Amino acid sequence: MKYTILTLFPGLVRPWLEEALIQKAIEKGLIEVEVRDIRDYANNKHNIVDETPYGGGAGMVMKVDVVVRAIEAAGEADEVILLTPAGRPFNQRTAEELAALSSDQGRKHLVLVCGRYEGIDARVEQFVTREVSIGDYVLMGGELGALVLLEATSRLIPGVIKEAESHQQDSFSTGLLDYPHYTRPASFRGLEVPEILISGHHAKINEWRRRQALSRTKARRPDLLNGTELTPKDLAWLDAQDGSA
Amino acid sequence: MKYTILTLFPGLVRPWLEEALIQKAIEKGLIEVEVRDIRDYANNKHNIVDETPYGGGAGMVMKVDVVVRAIEAAGEADEVILLTPAGRPFNQRTAEELAALSSDQGRKHLVLVCGRYEGIDARVEQFVTREVSIGDYVLMGGELGALVLLEATSRLIPGVIKEAESHQQDSFSTGLLDYPHYTRPASFRGLEVPEILISGHHAKINEWRRRQALSRTKARRPDLLNGTELTPKDLAWLDAQDGSA
Repeated sequence: MKYTILTLFPGLVRPWLEEALIQKAIEKGLIEVEVRDIRDYANNKHNIVDETPYGGGAGMVMKVDVVVRAIEAAGEADEVILLTPAGRPFNQRTAEELAALSSDQGRKHLVLVCGRYEGIDARVEQFVTREVSIGDYVLMGGELGALVLLEATSRLIPGVIKEAESHQQDSFSTGLLDYPHYTRPASFRGLEVPEILISGHHAKINEWRRRQALSRTKARRPDLLNGTELTPKDLAWLDAQDGSA
Repeated sequence: MKYTILTLFPGLVRPWLEEALIQKAIEKGLIEVEVRDIRDYANNKHNIVDETPYGGGAGMVMKVDVVVRAIEAAGEADEVILLTPAGRPFNQRTAEELAALSSDQGRKHLVLVCGRYEGIDARVEQFVTREVSIGDYVLMGGELGALVLLEATSRLIPGVIKEAESHQQDSFSTGLLDYPHYTRPASFRGLEVPEILISGHHAKINEWRRRQALSRTKARRPDLLNGTELTPKDLAWLDAQDGSA
């Protein structure tokens, strides 16, 4: 997968290329990441990239001509994604869908466009394939959104994480929150590792973990349970918890 | 507001302190940001911060003793927040709540704890005040989550953004998605700025913007309309759209 990230602040994005897993993925040729400065496409004497909004109001708006030149200069793309709080919510399903692009034949290319200031001229929407939002909050720009897309999708590309198993158990991949993890020391200030985990009984450990994932999801994110395939055993466990509450 | 960010990868987080608005907020003394390396609290010969999980399975788990030492070394804190996909969803309301801390008397202190690897020992939960997730996707670590909290909360602190007005119109702050913005050129490849915006008629412009925000929210995020106060005029506009569809 090739990623091109278009930003007014390449200095915020470039250090991420040295993030351990991303750097390894780049070295192995599994991904390629290019970071380009939108200001290089200003094509005017003062390198102006934003102006005041038509109709008045606070803040500055990024210019459609500059942003579109940057998008077109990035070359042929399979997806051009604008990061904006007004976009469709990005989630693990979207990450899987985008990562799957790269396992098709040929090298795929995602262009990620980061807005800044008050906003970006709405006509840019005509030159992108989708608009996505990483969450229901407002940031200073699209850079963190682009990095979220980069991390979330690239770790799903085969070979980027050592054990494929490692993300099949992730939160959301199973439709549930992840179960709790423990490592040494076994005892810390009176807090002990659950005994079952040192029993060596793998079937029981798996059952315990499934139940923990179910209980946690029910307590913290009951909304996720609706979209998840639950076995009769899962349902019996959740019912039994209601009884004991 | 003082932020302490605890991470195994300070090199990913520190460049953000030079982000334009954050840097200015730091210079003006409105916020203070300290980035600390969790590895400095390993207290063992090989600086081990993670080990294999009890009960088996893929990946490594961050050690409770190391993380808790780092949290305690950060000093008195008003909130200790663990970034984890299993946390409660972070949104604009949470950002406003945390930002409001800083307008109370005295300097407030948020400690942001970034997990890495497969996860973090679940006993860490006993030493934090809340666990939050920035979205329903899995990242390589908590660093992007900590930066999302930093950006989303600090821009709400009075003085960080020039015009307070500038965030009162943001997506989510009004309960709706933001209306579309436009700036020069007025015409770009046949795409024109909506005429109303160059009419100079401010009441009509405001009405148009409100309607655009309503239509966009209805099309892209109908879920947000439930939690939003709508005027009889808003409702009439939304109804009229149904009729024309």
